[in-house]
Amino acid sequence: MSTLECLSSQRAFGGWHKRYRHRSVSTGTDMVFAVYLPPQTAEGHKVPVLYWLSGLTCTDENFATKAGAQRVAAELGLALVMPDTSPRGAEVADAEGYDLGQGASFYVNATEAPWSAHYRMYDYVATELPALVEAHFPVTAQRSVSGHSMGGHGALMLALRNPGRYCSVSAFSPIVNPCDVPWGQKAFAAYLGNDRSAWAAYDSIRLLATHAVSLPALVDQGEADSFLGEQLQPEVLVAAARKAGWPLELRMQPGYDHSYYFVASFIEAHLHFHARHLYAER
Amino acid sequence: MSTLECLSSQRAFGGWHKRYRHRSVSTGTDMVFAVYLPPQTAEGHKVPVLYWLSGLTCTDENFATKAGAQRVAAELGLALVMPDTSPRGAEVADAEGYDLGQGASFYVNATEAPWSAHYRMYDYVATELPALVEAHFPVTAQRSVSGHSMGGHGALMLALRNPGRYCSVSAFSPIVNPCDVPWGQKAFAAYLGNDRSAWAAYDSIRLLATHAVSLPALVDQGEADSFLGEQLQPEVLVAAARKAGWPLELRMQPGYDHSYYFVASFIEAHLHFHARHLYAER
Repeated sequence: MSTLECLSSQRAFGGWHKRYRHRSVSTGTDMVFAVYLPPQTAEGHKVPVLYWLSGLTCTDENFATKAGAQRVAAELGLALVMPDTSPRGAEVADAEGYDLGQGASFYVNATEAPWSAHYRMYDYVATELPALVEAHFPVTAQRSVSGHSMGGHGALMLALRNPGRYCSVSAFSPIVNPCDVPWGQKAFAAYLGNDRSAWAAYDSIRLLATHAVSLPALVDQGEADSFLGEQLQPEVLVAAARKAGWPLELRMQPGYDHSYYFVASFIEAHLHFHARHLYAER
Repeated sequence: MSTLECLSSQRAFGGWHKRYRHRSVSTGTDMVFAVYLPPQTAEGHKVPVLYWLSGLTCTDENFATKAGAQRVAAELGLALVMPDTSPRGAEVADAEGYDLGQGASFYVNATEAPWSAHYRMYDYVATELPALVEAHFPVTAQRSVSGHSMGGHGALMLALRNPGRYCSVSAFSPIVNPCDVPWGQKAFAAYLGNDRSAWAAYDSIRLLATHAVSLPALVDQGEADSFLGEQLQPEVLVAAARKAGWPLELRMQPGYDHSYYFVASFIEAHLHFHARHLYAER
Protein backbone atom coordinates (compact mmCIF):
# COMPACT_ATOMS: atom_id res chain seq x y z
CA MET A 1 0.00 0.00 0.00
CA SER A 2 1.34 3.40 -0.93
CA THR A 3 2.55 5.87 1.66
CA LEU A 4 0.81 9.18 2.17
CA GLU A 5 2.52 12.56 1.95
CA CYS A 6 0.59 15.20 3.90
CA LEU A 7 0.42 18.42 1.84
CA SER A 8 -1.57 20.52 4.30
CA SER A 9 -3.55 20.26 7.50
CA GLN A 10 -6.02 23.01 8.40
CA ARG A 11 -8.35 23.29 11.32
CA ALA A 12 -12.01 23.67 10.30
CA PHE A 13 -15.14 23.49 12.44
CA GLY A 14 -13.27 21.88 15.31
CA GLY A 15 -11.86 19.11 13.08
CA TRP A 16 -9.12 18.95 10.46
CA HIS A 17 -9.13 19.35 6.69
CA LYS A 18 -6.08 17.53 5.28
CA ARG A 19 -4.69 17.01 1.79
CA TYR A 20 -2.49 14.08 0.79
CA ARG A 21 -0.45 12.93 -2.20
CA HIS A 22 0.31 9.29 -2.87
CA ARG A 23 1.42 7.00 -5.68
CA SER A 24 -1.63 5.27 -7.11
CA VAL A 25 -1.34 1.69 -8.35
CA SER A 26 -4.60 2.18 -10.28
CA THR A 27 -3.56 5.22 -12.31
CA GLY A 28 0.22 4.81 -12.22
CA THR A 29 0.48 8.49 -11.25
CA ASP A 30 0.66 10.56 -8.11
CA MET A 31 -2.86 11.31 -6.91
CA VAL A 32 -4.03 14.04 -4.51
CA PHE A 33 -7.05 13.67 -2.27
CA ALA A 34 -8.48 15.50 0.75
CA VAL A 35 -9.93 14.13 3.99
CA TYR A 36 -11.99 15.98 6.53
CA LEU A 37 -11.73 14.42 9.98
CA PRO A 38 -14.49 15.65 12.31
CA PRO A 39 -13.84 16.52 15.97
CA GLN A 40 -15.14 13.12 17.12
CA THR A 41 -12.01 11.45 15.69
CA ALA A 42 -9.81 13.50 18.04
CA GLU A 43 -11.73 11.91 20.89
CA GLY A 44 -10.67 8.47 19.65
CA HIS A 45 -13.86 7.50 17.83
CA LYS A 46 -13.89 5.89 14.42
CA VAL A 47 -16.47 7.49 12.15
CA PRO A 48 -18.19 6.47 8.91
CA VAL A 49 -17.12 8.04 5.60
CA LEU A 50 -18.88 9.95 2.85
CA TYR A 51 -16.99 9.84 -0.45
CA TRP A 52 -17.54 12.90 -2.62
CA LEU A 53 -16.96 12.82 -6.39
CA SER A 54 -16.62 16.19 -8.10
CA GLY A 55 -17.62 17.24 -11.58
CA LEU A 56 -15.94 18.38 -14.79
CA THR A 57 -13.01 20.83 -14.33
CA CYS A 58 -12.76 20.19 -10.57
CA THR A 59 -9.97 19.05 -8.27
CA ASP A 60 -10.32 17.95 -4.64
CA GLU A 61 -10.55 21.63 -3.69
CA ASN A 62 -13.83 22.83 -5.23
CA PHE A 63 -16.13 20.89 -2.91
CA ALA A 64 -13.74 21.38 0.02
CA THR A 65 -13.75 25.16 -0.19
CA LYS A 66 -17.23 25.89 -1.56
CA ALA A 67 -19.82 23.42 -0.27
CA GLY A 68 -19.64 24.10 3.46
CA ALA A 69 -19.88 20.35 4.09
CA GLN A 70 -17.30 20.27 6.89
CA ARG A 71 -19.63 22.19 9.19
CA VAL A 72 -22.31 19.53 8.90
CA ALA A 73 -19.83 16.64 8.94
CA ALA A 74 -18.47 18.01 12.23
CA GLU A 75 -21.95 18.06 13.74
CA LEU A 76 -22.85 14.57 12.54
CA GLY A 77 -19.52 12.82 13.06
CA LEU A 78 -18.78 11.95 9.44
CA ALA A 79 -15.44 11.87 7.66
CA LEU A 80 -15.40 13.29 4.13
CA VAL A 81 -13.07 11.94 1.43
CA MET A 82 -12.59 14.08 -1.69
CA PRO A 83 -10.52 12.60 -4.54
CA ASP A 84 -9.33 14.45 -7.62
CA THR A 85 -11.41 13.96 -10.77
CA SER A 86 -8.70 12.35 -12.94
CA PRO A 87 -5.03 11.44 -13.10
CA ARG A 88 -2.84 14.45 -13.87
CA GLY A 89 0.71 15.22 -14.95
CA ALA A 90 2.89 15.79 -18.00
CA GLU A 91 2.86 12.04 -18.77
CA VAL A 92 -0.94 11.82 -18.67
CA ALA A 93 -2.97 12.14 -21.89
CA ASP A 94 -5.12 15.24 -22.18
CA ALA A 95 -7.49 16.96 -24.61
CA GLU A 96 -8.38 20.56 -25.33
CA GLY A 97 -12.00 20.56 -24.13
CA TYR A 98 -12.93 20.79 -20.45
CA ASP A 99 -15.05 17.64 -20.85
CA LEU A 100 -12.34 15.12 -21.80
CA GLY A 101 -8.96 14.27 -20.28
CA GLN A 102 -7.42 15.80 -17.18
CA GLY A 103 -10.19 16.97 -14.85
CA ALA A 104 -12.78 14.87 -16.72
CA SER A 105 -12.24 11.15 -16.14
CA PHE A 106 -15.88 10.11 -15.82
CA TYR A 107 -14.58 7.62 -13.23
CA VAL A 108 -14.09 4.86 -15.82
CA ASN A 109 -11.28 2.38 -16.51
CA ALA A 110 -10.27 3.47 -20.01
CA THR A 111 -9.51 0.73 -22.53
CA GLU A 112 -8.50 2.89 -25.51
CA ALA A 113 -5.08 4.43 -26.17
CA PRO A 114 -3.79 6.89 -25.12
CA TRP A 115 -6.22 7.04 -22.18
CA SER A 116 -5.82 3.46 -21.00
CA ALA A 117 -2.28 4.10 -19.71
CA HIS A 118 -3.49 6.13 -16.70
CA TYR A 119 -7.28 6.68 -16.77
CA ARG A 120 -8.31 3.92 -14.34
CA MET A 121 -10.35 6.08 -12.03
CA TYR A 122 -13.06 3.44 -11.52
CA ASP A 123 -10.57 1.15 -9.79
CA TYR A 124 -9.15 4.12 -7.92
CA VAL A 125 -12.40 5.38 -6.39
CA ALA A 126 -14.12 1.99 -6.02
CA THR A 127 -11.27 0.04 -4.46
CA GLU A 128 -7.86 1.63 -4.00
CA LEU A 129 -8.88 4.84 -2.26
CA PRO A 130 -11.29 3.26 0.28
CA ALA A 131 -8.64 0.65 1.19
CA LEU A 132 -6.08 3.42 1.67
CA VAL A 133 -8.45 5.56 3.72
CA GLU A 134 -9.53 2.67 5.93
CA ALA A 135 -5.90 1.70 6.58
CA HIS A 136 -4.66 5.20 7.46
CA PHE A 137 -7.52 7.10 9.12
CA PRO A 138 -9.84 6.60 12.11
CA VAL A 139 -12.82 5.48 10.06
CA THR A 140 -15.17 2.52 10.01
CA ALA A 141 -15.98 0.48 6.89
CA GLN A 142 -19.39 2.20 6.67
CA ARG A 143 -19.31 4.16 3.40
CA SER A 144 -21.69 6.33 1.47
CA VAL A 145 -21.09 8.16 -1.78
CA SER A 146 -22.26 11.42 -3.32
CA GLY A 147 -21.23 13.74 -6.10
CA HIS A 148 -22.07 16.59 -8.45
CA SER A 149 -22.68 16.44 -12.21
CA MET A 150 -20.02 14.05 -13.65
CA GLY A 151 -19.41 13.12 -10.00
CA GLY A 152 -23.11 12.47 -9.52
CA HIS A 153 -22.84 10.04 -12.42
CA GLY A 154 -19.85 8.47 -10.66
CA ALA A 155 -21.67 8.15 -7.34
CA LEU A 156 -24.80 6.52 -8.79
CA MET A 157 -22.77 4.22 -11.06
CA LEU A 158 -20.47 3.08 -8.23
CA ALA A 159 -23.42 2.39 -5.93
CA LEU A 160 -25.31 0.44 -8.59
CA ARG A 161 -22.29 -1.69 -9.56
CA ASN A 162 -21.25 -2.51 -6.00
CA PRO A 163 -24.19 -3.78 -3.92
CA GLY A 164 -23.39 -3.73 -0.23
CA ARG A 165 -20.37 -1.47 -0.54
CA TYR A 166 -22.25 1.75 0.26
CA CYS A 167 -24.97 2.40 2.84
CA SER A 168 -26.56 5.18 0.75
CA VAL A 169 -26.01 7.24 -2.39
CA SER A 170 -26.92 10.78 -3.36
CA ALA A 171 -26.24 13.16 -6.20
CA PHE A 172 -26.58 16.79 -7.24
CA SER A 173 -27.43 17.43 -10.91
CA PRO A 174 -26.06 14.04 -12.01
CA ILE A 175 -25.44 12.78 -15.52
CA VAL A 176 -27.58 9.63 -15.42
CA ASN A 177 -27.48 8.25 -18.97
CA PRO A 178 -24.04 9.09 -20.37
CA CYS A 179 -24.60 6.71 -23.30
CA ASP A 180 -27.33 9.03 -24.56
CA VAL A 181 -26.04 12.58 -23.92
CA PRO A 182 -23.23 14.60 -25.54
CA TRP A 183 -20.86 14.74 -22.54
CA GLY A 184 -21.02 10.98 -22.03
CA GLN A 185 -20.88 10.05 -25.72
CA LYS A 186 -17.73 12.13 -26.26
CA ALA A 187 -16.00 10.74 -23.17
CA PHE A 188 -17.04 7.11 -23.58
CA ALA A 189 -16.08 7.03 -27.29
CA ALA A 190 -12.60 8.24 -26.33
CA TYR A 191 -12.06 6.18 -23.18
CA LEU A 192 -13.96 3.00 -24.12
CA GLY A 193 -14.05 2.96 -27.93
CA ASN A 194 -16.88 2.79 -30.39
CA ASP A 195 -18.35 -0.55 -29.27
CA ARG A 196 -21.21 0.81 -27.22
CA SER A 197 -21.82 -2.46 -25.43
CA ALA A 198 -18.79 -1.59 -23.29
CA TRP A 199 -20.39 1.70 -22.24
CA ALA A 200 -23.33 0.16 -20.41
CA ALA A 201 -21.22 -0.80 -17.39
CA TYR A 202 -20.84 2.92 -16.61
CA ASP A 203 -24.39 4.08 -17.37
CA SER A 204 -26.83 4.23 -14.45
CA ILE A 205 -29.89 3.71 -16.63
CA ARG A 206 -28.41 0.54 -18.19
CA LEU A 207 -27.20 -0.66 -14.79
CA LEU A 208 -30.68 -0.23 -13.32
CA ALA A 209 -32.04 -2.62 -15.95
CA THR A 210 -29.59 -5.38 -15.00
CA HIS A 211 -28.61 -4.84 -11.35
CA ALA A 212 -30.93 -5.31 -8.36
CA VAL A 213 -30.56 -2.34 -6.05
CA SER A 214 -31.89 -1.59 -2.64
CA LEU A 215 -29.77 1.20 -1.18
CA PRO A 216 -31.37 4.54 -0.22
CA ALA A 217 -30.92 7.24 -2.87
CA LEU A 218 -31.50 11.00 -2.95
CA VAL A 219 -31.06 13.29 -5.96
CA ASP A 220 -31.39 17.09 -6.08
CA GLN A 221 -31.67 18.90 -9.39
CA GLY A 222 -31.94 22.65 -9.98
CA GLU A 223 -34.70 23.71 -12.34
CA ALA A 224 -32.63 26.66 -13.66
CA ASP A 225 -29.64 24.42 -14.47
CA SER A 226 -28.48 25.35 -17.97
CA PHE A 227 -27.45 21.72 -18.62
CA LEU A 228 -30.90 20.34 -17.80
CA GLY A 229 -32.53 18.66 -20.76
CA GLU A 230 -29.56 18.10 -23.06
CA GLN A 231 -26.99 16.66 -20.61
CA LEU A 232 -29.00 16.00 -17.45
CA GLN A 233 -32.23 14.00 -17.72
CA PRO A 234 -33.42 13.23 -14.20
CA GLU A 235 -36.84 12.10 -15.46
CA VAL A 236 -35.11 9.21 -17.27
CA LEU A 237 -33.54 8.14 -13.97
CA VAL A 238 -36.85 8.35 -12.16
CA ALA A 239 -38.55 6.20 -14.82
CA ALA A 240 -35.79 3.58 -14.72
CA ALA A 241 -35.82 3.55 -10.91
CA ARG A 242 -39.57 3.05 -10.85
CA LYS A 243 -39.28 0.15 -13.30
CA ALA A 244 -36.55 -1.40 -11.15
CA GLY A 245 -38.56 -0.92 -7.97
CA TRP A 246 -35.91 1.40 -6.51
CA PRO A 247 -37.38 4.03 -4.13
CA LEU A 248 -35.17 6.85 -5.32
CA GLU A 249 -36.15 10.35 -4.18
CA LEU A 250 -35.72 13.11 -6.78
CA ARG A 251 -36.24 16.70 -5.65
CA MET A 252 -36.53 19.43 -8.29
CA GLN A 253 -35.38 22.75 -6.82
CA PRO A 254 -36.95 25.85 -8.42
CA GLY A 255 -34.55 28.63 -9.41
CA TYR A 256 -31.29 26.81 -8.66
CA ASP A 257 -28.51 26.48 -11.23
CA HIS A 258 -25.57 24.05 -11.69
CA SER A 259 -23.13 25.89 -9.40
CA TYR A 260 -21.74 25.22 -5.96
CA TYR A 261 -24.27 27.72 -4.57
CA PHE A 262 -26.79 24.99 -5.38
CA VAL A 263 -24.67 22.25 -3.79
CA ALA A 264 -24.03 24.41 -0.70
CA SER A 265 -27.75 25.12 -0.33
CA PHE A 266 -28.65 21.43 -0.02
CA ILE A 267 -25.51 19.68 1.25
CA GLU A 268 -26.81 19.76 4.83
CA ALA A 269 -29.85 17.69 3.82
CA HIS A 270 -27.64 15.20 1.96
CA LEU A 271 -25.28 14.74 4.90
CA HIS A 272 -28.20 14.18 7.27
CA PHE A 273 -29.62 11.63 4.81
CA HIS A 274 -26.31 9.75 4.66
CA ALA A 275 -25.71 9.94 8.42
CA ARG A 276 -29.08 8.33 9.10
CA HIS A 277 -28.12 5.33 6.97
CA LEU A 278 -24.44 5.20 7.93
CA TYR A 279 -25.21 5.18 11.64
CA ALA A 280 -28.23 2.88 11.30
CA GLU A 281 -26.08 0.16 9.76
CA ARG A 282 -23.18 0.36 12.17
CA MET B 1 -26.04 57.93 -9.12
CA SER B 2 -24.56 55.30 -11.38
CA THR B 3 -26.66 52.58 -12.96
CA LEU B 4 -26.12 48.94 -12.10
CA GLU B 5 -25.39 46.23 -14.65
CA CYS B 6 -26.36 42.80 -13.31
CA LEU B 7 -23.61 40.28 -14.15
CA SER B 8 -25.20 37.21 -12.57
CA SER B 9 -28.03 36.16 -10.31
CA GLN B 10 -27.88 32.78 -8.57
CA ARG B 11 -30.28 31.22 -6.13
CA ALA B 12 -28.65 30.28 -2.82
CA PHE B 13 -30.29 29.18 0.44
CA GLY B 14 -33.69 30.38 -0.69
CA GLY B 15 -32.38 33.88 -1.50
CA TRP B 16 -30.34 35.34 -4.34
CA HIS B 17 -26.63 35.96 -4.78
CA LYS B 18 -26.15 38.72 -7.35
CA ARG B 19 -23.11 40.43 -8.89
CA TYR B 20 -23.17 43.95 -10.33
CA ARG B 21 -20.86 46.27 -12.25
CA HIS B 22 -21.18 50.05 -12.10
CA ARG B 23 -19.17 53.17 -12.82
CA SER B 24 -17.72 54.48 -9.56
CA VAL B 25 -17.39 58.22 -9.02
CA SER B 26 -14.93 57.52 -6.19
CA THR B 27 -12.45 55.44 -8.16
CA GLY B 28 -13.19 56.67 -11.68
CA THR B 29 -13.34 53.02 -12.80
CA ASP B 30 -15.90 50.30 -13.23
CA MET B 31 -16.35 48.46 -9.94
CA VAL B 32 -17.86 45.02 -9.30
CA PHE B 33 -19.63 44.08 -6.10
CA ALA B 34 -21.90 41.25 -4.94
CA VAL B 35 -25.10 41.36 -2.90
CA TYR B 36 -26.80 38.48 -1.15
CA LEU B 37 -30.52 39.10 -0.70
CA PRO B 38 -32.05 36.71 1.85
CA PRO B 39 -35.49 35.08 1.32
CA GLN B 40 -37.16 37.67 3.57
CA THR B 41 -36.65 40.33 0.87
CA ALA B 42 -38.78 38.29 -1.57
CA GLU B 43 -41.58 38.59 0.94
CA GLY B 44 -41.35 42.38 0.69
CA HIS B 45 -39.36 43.06 3.85
CA LYS B 46 -36.43 45.45 4.01
CA VAL B 47 -33.50 43.94 5.86
CA PRO B 48 -30.35 45.36 7.48
CA VAL B 49 -26.97 44.98 5.76
CA LEU B 50 -23.62 43.52 6.70
CA TYR B 51 -20.76 44.92 4.61
CA TRP B 52 -17.86 42.48 4.16
CA LEU B 53 -14.35 43.68 3.28
CA SER B 54 -12.00 41.05 1.92
CA GLY B 55 -8.25 40.73 2.31
CA LEU B 56 -5.16 40.89 0.11
CA THR B 57 -5.48 39.16 -3.31
CA CYS B 58 -9.27 38.83 -3.05
CA THR B 59 -12.17 39.94 -5.23
CA ASP B 60 -15.87 39.93 -4.28
CA GLU B 61 -15.90 36.18 -4.92
CA ASN B 62 -13.65 34.71 -2.22
CA PHE B 63 -15.97 35.40 0.68
CA ALA B 64 -19.03 34.72 -1.46
CA THR B 65 -17.95 31.22 -2.47
CA LYS B 66 -15.95 30.10 0.57
CA ALA B 67 -17.37 31.49 3.82
CA GLY B 68 -20.82 29.92 3.81
CA ALA B 69 -22.26 33.21 5.06
CA GLN B 70 -25.36 33.15 2.85
CA ARG B 71 -26.77 30.21 4.80
CA VAL B 72 -26.70 32.17 8.05
CA ALA B 73 -27.79 35.44 6.42
CA ALA B 74 -30.83 33.60 5.05
CA GLU B 75 -31.74 32.37 8.53
CA LEU B 76 -31.26 35.75 10.19
CA GLY B 77 -32.68 38.00 7.49
CA LEU B 78 -29.51 39.95 6.69
CA ALA B 79 -28.32 41.25 3.33
CA LEU B 80 -24.61 40.85 2.60
CA VAL B 81 -22.67 43.35 0.47
CA MET B 82 -19.24 42.28 -0.82
CA PRO B 83 -17.17 44.88 -2.69
CA ASP B 84 -13.95 44.22 -4.59
CA THR B 85 -10.71 45.03 -2.74
CA SER B 86 -9.41 47.72 -5.13
CA PRO B 87 -10.03 49.46 -8.43
CA ARG B 88 -8.91 47.34 -11.40
CA GLY B 89 -8.24 47.72 -15.09
CA ALA B 90 -5.51 48.48 -17.62
CA GLU B 91 -5.64 52.18 -16.70
CA VAL B 92 -5.20 51.50 -12.96
CA ALA B 93 -1.72 51.57 -11.37
CA ASP B 94 -0.41 48.25 -10.14
CA ALA B 95 2.69 46.73 -8.53
CA GLU B 96 4.34 43.33 -8.69
CA GLY B 97 3.73 42.19 -5.10
CA TYR B 98 0.40 40.79 -3.93
CA ASP B 99 0.38 43.36 -1.11
CA LEU B 100 0.29 46.60 -3.14
CA GLY B 101 -1.87 47.78 -6.03
CA GLN B 102 -4.74 45.89 -7.63
CA GLY B 103 -6.29 43.54 -5.05
CA ALA B 104 -4.58 45.40 -2.21
CA SER B 105 -6.07 48.86 -1.70
CA PHE B 106 -6.07 48.92 2.12
CA TYR B 107 -9.33 50.88 1.73
CA VAL B 108 -7.55 54.26 1.74
CA ASN B 109 -7.88 57.42 -0.37
CA ALA B 110 -4.42 57.55 -1.94
CA THR B 111 -2.76 60.94 -2.18
CA GLU B 112 0.45 59.94 -3.98
CA ALA B 113 0.92 59.45 -7.72
CA PRO B 114 0.29 57.15 -9.51
CA TRP B 115 -2.13 55.69 -6.95
CA SER B 116 -4.15 58.84 -6.31
CA ALA B 117 -5.77 58.70 -9.76
CA HIS B 118 -8.02 55.74 -8.84
CA TYR B 119 -7.26 54.37 -5.38
CA ARG B 120 -10.06 56.08 -3.45
CA MET B 121 -11.49 52.99 -1.84
CA TYR B 122 -12.17 54.71 1.50
CA ASP B 123 -14.75 56.96 -0.14
CA TYR B 124 -16.08 54.01 -2.11
CA VAL B 125 -16.76 51.69 0.82
CA ALA B 126 -17.63 54.38 3.39
CA THR B 127 -20.02 56.47 1.30
CA GLU B 128 -20.60 55.64 -2.37
CA LEU B 129 -21.39 51.94 -2.05
CA PRO B 130 -23.83 52.22 0.90
CA ALA B 131 -25.71 55.02 -0.89
CA LEU B 132 -25.92 52.89 -4.03
CA VAL B 133 -27.04 49.80 -2.10
CA GLU B 134 -29.66 51.68 -0.14
CA ALA B 135 -31.06 53.25 -3.31
CA HIS B 136 -31.30 50.01 -5.32
CA PHE B 137 -32.03 47.16 -2.92
CA PRO B 138 -34.66 46.31 -0.28
CA VAL B 139 -32.50 47.23 2.69
CA THR B 140 -32.78 49.46 5.71
CA ALA B 141 -30.13 52.00 6.74
CA GLN B 142 -29.00 49.67 9.55
CA ARG B 143 -25.42 48.70 8.68
CA SER B 144 -22.69 46.62 10.23
CA VAL B 145 -19.23 45.89 8.88
CA SER B 146 -16.83 42.97 9.02
CA GLY B 147 -13.76 41.76 7.17
CA HIS B 148 -10.73 39.50 7.03
CA SER B 149 -7.06 40.48 7.31
CA MET B 150 -6.63 43.72 5.26
CA GLY B 151 -10.44 43.77 5.22
CA GLY B 152 -10.49 43.41 9.02
CA HIS B 153 -8.30 46.51 9.11
CA GLY B 154 -10.81 48.20 6.81
CA ALA B 155 -13.80 47.22 8.94
CA LEU B 156 -12.31 48.41 12.24
CA MET B 157 -10.97 51.62 10.70
CA LEU B 158 -14.29 52.47 9.02
CA ALA B 159 -16.22 51.86 12.23
CA LEU B 160 -13.83 53.95 14.33
CA ARG B 161 -13.84 56.87 11.89
CA ASN B 162 -17.61 56.97 11.42
CA PRO B 163 -19.45 56.95 14.75
CA GLY B 164 -23.11 56.12 14.31
CA ARG B 165 -22.75 54.76 10.79
CA TYR B 166 -22.50 51.10 11.83
CA CYS B 167 -24.40 49.20 14.51
CA SER B 168 -21.53 46.78 15.13
CA VAL B 169 -18.11 45.79 13.80
CA SER B 170 -16.23 42.51 13.66
CA ALA B 171 -13.05 41.18 12.14
CA PHE B 172 -11.17 37.98 11.42
CA SER B 173 -7.35 38.12 11.76
CA PRO B 174 -7.29 41.92 11.21
CA ILE B 175 -4.30 44.15 10.62
CA VAL B 176 -4.80 46.59 13.52
CA ASN B 177 -1.72 48.82 13.47
CA PRO B 178 -0.70 49.19 9.81
CA CYS B 179 1.66 52.07 10.71
CA ASP B 180 3.81 49.59 12.62
CA VAL B 181 3.82 46.41 10.51
CA PRO B 182 5.42 45.57 7.13
CA TRP B 183 2.21 45.19 5.09
CA GLY B 184 0.89 48.55 6.28
CA GLN B 185 4.17 50.42 6.05
CA LYS B 186 4.72 49.34 2.44
CA ALA B 187 1.16 50.23 1.39
CA PHE B 188 0.87 53.51 3.31
CA ALA B 189 4.26 54.77 2.07
CA ALA B 190 3.09 54.17 -1.51
CA TYR B 191 -0.49 55.42 -1.20
CA LEU B 192 -0.02 58.22 1.37
CA GLY B 193 3.63 59.22 1.12
CA ASN B 194 6.40 59.40 3.67
CA ASP B 195 4.75 61.88 6.05
CA ARG B 196 3.55 59.41 8.64
CA SER B 197 1.15 61.87 10.22
CA ALA B 198 -1.17 61.18 7.27
CA TRP B 199 -1.16 57.46 8.04
CA ALA B 200 -2.83 57.75 11.44
CA ALA B 201 -6.29 58.33 9.93
CA TYR B 202 -6.22 54.73 8.67
CA ASP B 203 -4.68 53.02 11.72
CA SER B 204 -7.10 51.57 14.28
CA ILE B 205 -4.65 51.91 17.16
CA ARG B 206 -4.10 55.63 16.43
CA LEU B 207 -7.83 56.15 15.88
CA LEU B 208 -8.62 54.57 19.24
CA ALA B 209 -6.45 57.18 20.93
CA THR B 210 -8.37 60.07 19.38
CA HIS B 211 -11.90 58.86 18.64
CA ALA B 212 -14.52 57.98 21.25
CA VAL B 213 -16.12 54.67 20.32
CA SER B 214 -19.00 52.77 21.72
CA LEU B 215 -20.09 50.28 19.09
CA PRO B 216 -20.01 46.53 19.85
CA ALA B 217 -16.91 44.79 18.47
CA LEU B 218 -15.88 41.15 18.05
CA VAL B 219 -12.52 39.89 16.74
CA ASP B 220 -11.49 36.28 16.07
CA GLN B 221 -7.83 35.39 15.56
CA GLY B 222 -6.37 31.95 14.81
CA GLU B 223 -3.44 30.94 16.97
CA ALA B 224 -1.81 28.98 14.11
CA ASP B 225 -2.00 31.98 11.73
CA SER B 226 1.40 32.31 10.07
CA PHE B 227 1.04 36.12 9.97
CA LEU B 228 0.45 36.39 13.71
CA GLY B 229 3.17 38.37 15.46
CA GLU B 230 4.78 40.19 12.53
CA GLN B 231 1.71 41.48 10.65
CA LEU B 232 -1.17 40.82 13.04
CA GLN B 233 -0.89 42.01 16.63
CA PRO B 234 -4.27 41.55 18.30
CA GLU B 235 -2.79 42.15 21.76
CA VAL B 236 -1.97 45.73 20.70
CA LEU B 237 -5.64 46.23 19.75
CA VAL B 238 -6.82 44.80 23.06
CA ALA B 239 -4.51 47.12 25.01
CA ALA B 240 -5.62 50.19 23.04
CA ALA B 241 -9.28 49.23 23.42
CA ARG B 242 -8.90 48.81 27.17
CA LYS B 243 -7.25 52.22 27.41
CA ALA B 244 -10.08 53.76 25.39
CA GLY B 245 -12.75 52.01 27.48
CA TRP B 246 -13.99 50.06 24.47
CA PRO B 247 -15.46 46.64 25.40
CA LEU B 248 -13.99 44.80 22.42
CA GLU B 249 -14.13 41.00 22.57
CA LEU B 250 -11.07 39.19 21.20
CA ARG B 251 -11.25 35.41 20.87
CA MET B 252 -8.04 33.48 20.21
CA GLN B 253 -8.86 30.24 18.36
CA PRO B 254 -6.38 27.40 18.92
CA GLY B 255 -5.16 25.58 15.81
CA TYR B 256 -6.80 27.85 13.22
CA ASP B 257 -4.80 29.48 10.41
CA HIS B 258 -5.37 32.54 8.17
CA SER B 259 -7.51 30.79 5.55
CA TYR B 260 -11.19 30.83 4.68
CA TYR B 261 -11.56 27.54 6.59
CA PHE B 262 -11.04 29.74 9.65
CA VAL B 263 -13.51 32.38 8.47
CA ALA B 264 -16.09 29.71 7.57
CA SER B 265 -15.72 28.08 11.00
CA PHE B 266 -16.74 31.26 12.85
CA ILE B 267 -18.83 33.29 10.40
CA GLU B 268 -22.04 31.98 11.96
CA ALA B 269 -21.09 33.49 15.33
CA HIS B 270 -20.22 36.82 13.67
CA LEU B 271 -23.51 37.02 11.79
CA HIS B 272 -25.47 36.24 14.95
CA PHE B 273 -23.47 38.97 16.75
CA HIS B 274 -24.26 41.53 14.06
CA ALA B 275 -27.92 40.50 13.76
CA ARG B 276 -28.43 41.06 17.49
CA HIS B 277 -27.23 44.64 17.16
CA LEU B 278 -28.76 45.37 13.75
CA TYR B 279 -32.20 44.23 14.81
CA ALA B 280 -31.97 45.80 18.29
CA GLU B 281 -31.46 49.25 16.79
CA ARG B 282 -34.16 49.10 14.19
